[in-house]
Amino acid sequence: MSKRVRIVVCGFGRVGRAFARLLGAKRALAERAHGVTLDLVGVGELGASLLRPHGLPPEETASFFEARGSFAGHPDARPGWQGLDLLREAEAEVLVETTPTDIRTGEPALGHVRAALGRGMHVASANKGPFIRHYRELRELAAKNGAALKLSAAAAAALPTLDVAQVCLAGAEILAIEGVLNGTSNFILTRMRTGQAYAEALAEAQRLGIAEPDPTLDVEGYDTANKLALIANVCMDADLEPGAVERTGITGLAAEAVRAAAAEGRTYRLVGRAVRDGDGRVRARVAPEGLPSDHPLAAVDGAEKGITYTTDTMHRVTVVGGKSDPRGAAAALLKDVLNVYRAS
Amino acid sequence: MSKRVRIVVCGFGRVGRAFARLLGAKRALAERAHGVTLDLVGVGELGASLLRPHGLPPEETASFFEARGSFAGHPDARPGWQGLDLLREAEAEVLVETTPTDIRTGEPALGHVRAALGRGMHVASANKGPFIRHYRELRELAAKNGAALKLSAAAAAALPTLDVAQVCLAGAEILAIEGVLNGTSNFILTRMRTGQAYAEALAEAQRLGIAEPDPTLDVEGYDTANKLALIANVCMDADLEPGAVERTGITGLAAEAVRAAAAEGRTYRLVGRAVRDGDGRVRARVAPEGLPSDHPLAAVDGAEKGITYTTDTMHRVTVVGGKSDPRGAAAALLKDVLNVYRAS
Repeated sequence: MSKRVRIVVCGFGRVGRAFARLLGAKRALAERAHGVTLDLVGVGELGASLLRPHGLPPEETASFFEARGSFAGHPDARPGWQGLDLLREAEAEVLVETTPTDIRTGEPALGHVRAALGRGMHVASANKGPFIRHYRELRELAAKNGAALKLSAAAAAALPTLDVAQVCLAGAEILAIEGVLNGTSNFILTRMRTGQAYAEALAEAQRLGIAEPDPTLDVEGYDTANKLALIANVCMDADLEPGAVERTGITGLAAEAVRAAAAEGRTYRLVGRAVRDGDGRVRARVAPEGLPSDHPLAAVDGAEKGITYTTDTMHRVTVVGGKSDPRGAAAALLKDVLNVYRAS
Repeated sequence: MSKRVRIVVCGFGRVGRAFARLLGAKRALAERAHGVTLDLVGVGELGASLLRPHGLPPEETASFFEARGSFAGHPDARPGWQGLDLLREAEAEVLVETTPTDIRTGEPALGHVRAALGRGMHVASANKGPFIRHYRELRELAAKNGAALKLSAAAAAALPTLDVAQVCLAGAEILAIEGVLNGTSNFILTRMRTGQAYAEALAEAQRLGIAEPDPTLDVEGYDTANKLALIANVCMDADLEPGAVERTGITGLAAEAVRAAAAEGRTYRLVGRAVRDGDGRVRARVAPEGLPSDHPLAAVDGAEKGITYTTDTMHRVTVVGGKSDPRGAAAALLKDVLNVYRAS
């Protein structure tokens, strides 16, 4: 007997559409292996949202939006409805949140997440915006309403981070986190190691679509600081704001320093590091570090990511890899939804 | 409100005692973070077992056995009771199985696990013996009785393997597994890479207590084949017996081959590899392989272990590290027990 799980997706950009398509492709697997029937019943977007209580066809819904850029003219469209309207009207068990992030305000996702959790809906978010400053509030709201709050896709997409700490290292205390969490910076540093200058490596990353036209958030360490704060807040109960993370980017790193380190067998990585100090507080910083060759993150090459947890009872555990594209983020959302309904 | 969980440990060797001590050390954390009160109510051993329904003091119980080598004379001793007697008489929710393994018969652990699952008790096992040939039967017995069957400690101790596949990669299909799963072989290969001969590296591993006096199970790949079959059976539904794993050890590997590979930037590892073929069957083999330097398992040095999962939707995810000593195995048992009672 399969349990029916009704899902509303807010935000139908590349990640939202990839998630819808994955729902379609993995429907049989979810029934067979997890005992849940995953139905997409609504999509929140600007201009018009969709609502269809008996379930939308995921592939066709994604294609419709891709072709037209909005849901205007769709038979299930609710013109003028935003995400909040949809969340008020839809009967659903799960919100999947993938709207674009305004890191400063966390909106509109913050409103969506509050509304869903307030109604007892489980939330899986690819969006870290709401959790940068409001993680504790939202965690408590979820607990009060018996709802699950799942943030794998917001932390590092298909690279498992939060669930490794919470499930695979359950019972161990996390003493420190080190993360190579930004693919753009890591790509640039990998190229610099073999002799490219910073500007040249950045230009190549931009040509390949790895770096944004304005790479500031990546190369100045803001993205790493945001992810690090989120992971430390979830896994170390750290209560960090990204502003409290000491931050040095890679733009000031001299090519000679990278090459000199390489000659000594060390590899520069932009490392986010959170450590619990003797007083119990977690301190965090982001900076380029020349890692020795036996450090497990030294081997994280190119646009890959990785994270190392140092624990009291399990020693050091490192996870590396995971797809960084929209399909990888969608896969992380899907696993979070499936794990909400996991019987141990 | 904390839920009381009564635990019986069968086998009180180094892993069993480390688990008991960890129960004591992590009691407060388990209550605070997981809402469970973990009580050790029985210990099964040869000669005499212990039963104390209100809970044994873990540290004192471990020290008593360490000092005397048996429970004879202990106020809670049941002389003549073996594990099966204890499992029949004890009221408990969880069996933690850590008896020495007879890989051929799986006994006495197989009997313990059958008895516990048959009564609806959850099982966490550090012992792979019973699961080498009987995994499907035991999984079905567990499902029929609503019991959890947790094998993290049997698969690779504190290196997370099964839960990474089942939880962190939920919804993704595992297409292939590659594992460096035997610390002894990896230590020897790491030493050979820098010029030691096989015999010399083995002797050093034996001096350091990494290799057994008879290293056959490790260096001939039997241990890797056993772990690989278990992991593939759990994560790929492979239905493999270790005898079906094609197996080449490291004893025939020439020092010159290892050095020549190193000169080309490749690193020899004893790799266990399971791949789902076009016909849907999983094929597995264990053999020394010269991995290219950008393979994530090439960086797994010394007595460390690592595993790489190749998936359909999340690309390649690698986990490396984890303590290999009895305390690491105990930590894996503890996490399995905590995860039985995890609310998503």
